Amino acid sequence: MDGNETTIHIEKICGRSREDLLSEIKKFHGHIAPGLVLGAIMVDWAQELIGQNVEADAVVETLKCLPDAVQIFTPCTIGNGWLKVLDWNQFALCLYDKKSKEGFRIWMDIEKSKRFPNLHKWFMHLASKKDLPLEALLETIFQAGRDVLSCRAVRIAATVGEKTKRKESICPSCGESYLAEHGLKCNACGGKGYYSISE
Amino acid sequence: MDGNETTIHIEKICGRSREDLLSEIKKFHGHIAPGLVLGAIMVDWAQELIGQNVEADAVVETLKCLPDAVQIFTPCTIGNGWLKVLDWNQFALCLYDKKSKEGFRIWMDIEKSKRFPNLHKWFMHLASKKDLPLEALLETIFQAGRDVLSCRAVRIAATVGEKTKRKESICPSCGESYLAEHGLKCNACGGKGYYSISE
Repeated sequence: MDGNETTIHIEKICGRSREDLLSEIKKFHGHIAPGLVLGAIMVDWAQELIGQNVEADAVVETLKCLPDAVQIFTPCTIGNGWLKVLDWNQFALCLYDKKSKEGFRIWMDIEKSKRFPNLHKWFMHLASKKDLPLEALLETIFQAGRDVLSCRAVRIAATVGEKTKRKESICPSCGESYLAEHGLKCNACGGKGYYSISE
Repeated sequence: MDGNETTIHIEKICGRSREDLLSEIKKFHGHIAPGLVLGAIMVDWAQELIGQNVEADAVVETLKCLPDAVQIFTPCTIGNGWLKVLDWNQFALCLYDKKSKEGFRIWMDIEKSKRFPNLHKWFMHLASKKDLPLEALLETIFQAGRDVLSCRAVRIAATVGEKTKRKESICPSCGESYLAEHGLKCNACGGKGYYSISE
């Protein structure tokens, strides 16, 4: 798999009609984001490559849109631990076999995107929302399908998704359970919190 | 609000019957996790305090279960940016007004949990799954409701949820877009990746 094949366009994405796909995206994500539609096409391809009988974990390399594509269209979520999210701003995801750690990385290929000007301009932040209406962009994304993506077979590092038992302590100031590695107090009591108490 | 009131037990949680709540948890999370049921009770209380007409963002302080409670029962998700997840292992969440940054932090109160031995043992990892069947634990969680939680009015730091534009570069090795702050190459090409290429 060198990621250079041009693939045929398939009728259904993640087993859904286009309408159902958009409606599920809107329900979970709040609105139809182009990145989520592209994300669904990425998940669809990864699922096809990895096969139906494999219990797959996921990694996404950006906080933007892609985590929701994985959470809507696979069993992996942040809270069940099967999805890891890296804040790298890279529009890429991996689905991989939980046991063998073998899987596929799929990413938005900037070079390939040049064939699809709407998509390229959107991805490279070269067009305003006014100049590039959502309808037109979605049409281009559906038309491009996998042709704007690349794919590689990968093996995920053994440490990813490993269940490590981290030592917990009780904070002497607030009485909450917290990660011992954070120090003698929890982050909030140690002055590293993200909020102040309102009176 | 000093978090010490005992609250009445309400019929519905996040507007759902007990059955619907458990079925939605199972559908999204894959199984009924006690932490997710407790998380729903936390979200329910926070939503009641903040009121229906407030557009709320969320922070959770653990990767375990709570992110999914927020994603199922509020409009906030990782991918739409309205939910921030801190890997602090603290069983706490905040819902707060997007504009004023005022909101409520709700947490599992270990001291209060002593009144509910099943819940206390589960939270403190003092009982095996065999000794504490899911059914019994869920019954205790529903019975305890908000009585095992504490709450405080908080103001979230201005920097949380701020949209900062981070500079992007094109990696000279792989051609992908990545965060410029990562260096001259993207993490994977710079040897800081989480996967190897399979042949």
